Amino acid sequence: MYLSSTTRGYLAGFLEADGSIYVRLKPNTTYRYGFQIAPSIVFYQHSSERTFLGELQKLMNIGYLRDRNDGITELTIGDRLSIRTLIKWTMPYLRLKKAQANLMLEILNKSEQVKSASDFYKVAQLIDGFGRLNYSKRRSINAQRVYHSLVERGLLTP
Amino acid sequence: MYLSSTTRGYLAGFLEADGSIYVRLKPNTTYRYGFQIAPSIVFYQHSSERTFLGELQKLMNIGYLRDRNDGITELTIGDRLSIRTLIKWTMPYLRLKKAQANLMLEILNKSEQVKSASDFYKVAQLIDGFGRLNYSKRRSINAQRVYHSLVERGLLTP
Repeated sequence: MYLSSTTRGYLAGFLEADGSIYVRLKPNTTYRYGFQIAPSIVFYQHSSERTFLGELQKLMNIGYLRDRNDGITELTIGDRLSIRTLIKWTMPYLRLKKAQANLMLEILNKSEQVKSASDFYKVAQLIDGFGRLNYSKRRSINAQRVYHSLVERGLLTP
Repeated sequence: MYLSSTTRGYLAGFLEADGSIYVRLKPNTTYRYGFQIAPSIVFYQHSSERTFLGELQKLMNIGYLRDRNDGITELTIGDRLSIRTLIKWTMPYLRLKKAQANLMLEILNKSEQVKSASDFYKVAQLIDGFGRLNYSKRRSINAQRVYHSLVERGLLTP
């Protein structure tokens, strides 16, 4: 997918103003360590600008639209290849969210090299970093909860 | 002031997501027709990102910072030369606010050619256009009010 450098700059500016870069831990018993690592890059707009978000989606050829019930539509990029592509496009122009983009790449890489519960716990600790960077008030699942769950399941010794 | 095309793209993206382009009519008896035409382009951020807005200001070398009392800081560009410069930089990359940018240029041009109360009223009617484009709920001063004021002051015949 080719995007001109000015379009990449535009996407960087838009993402920093009305976008978000984060990773969530979702409890899921079908996963080896009991949690799914769910990375996301999201562009937000009032649903009246849904058409515009659809154009961004076509332009980038990644992500999908989701209408929330509070009048906001999200263009969510959730698969790892697309996230890496979008970060590659925008990284040179990021000013506010460069740390989040770097942390995202680190988590994607580390999470693909997990060989033990201890490795998984370390990734969960990295994910906690988004709480600080994004000023997010509620993060229900943090590394501490992952730790207790891993110990409880006998995967980690306290 | 030289800005690279990618920086111009970035500014366009940021402006479209967390910015606004509008003109207000302010009652002011020292002006010939009783109202000041006040154009603005504004970048908004949570005041925690005040430093970032200061960097944008330095980068563009236009505008000034204003801390609102609701935790938002504004980078406001209010003088006509700076507004025209910023529009020249970003116009090629605008997707959501191109109509607002064009309307702004039209109002700047027309307001500098006002030769009568009737001309002034026409500019006020153009300014009403921002209400529709920006979905703004409260516009205390509209063209109708300008019309009544001009008639009241004997500058326009009904």
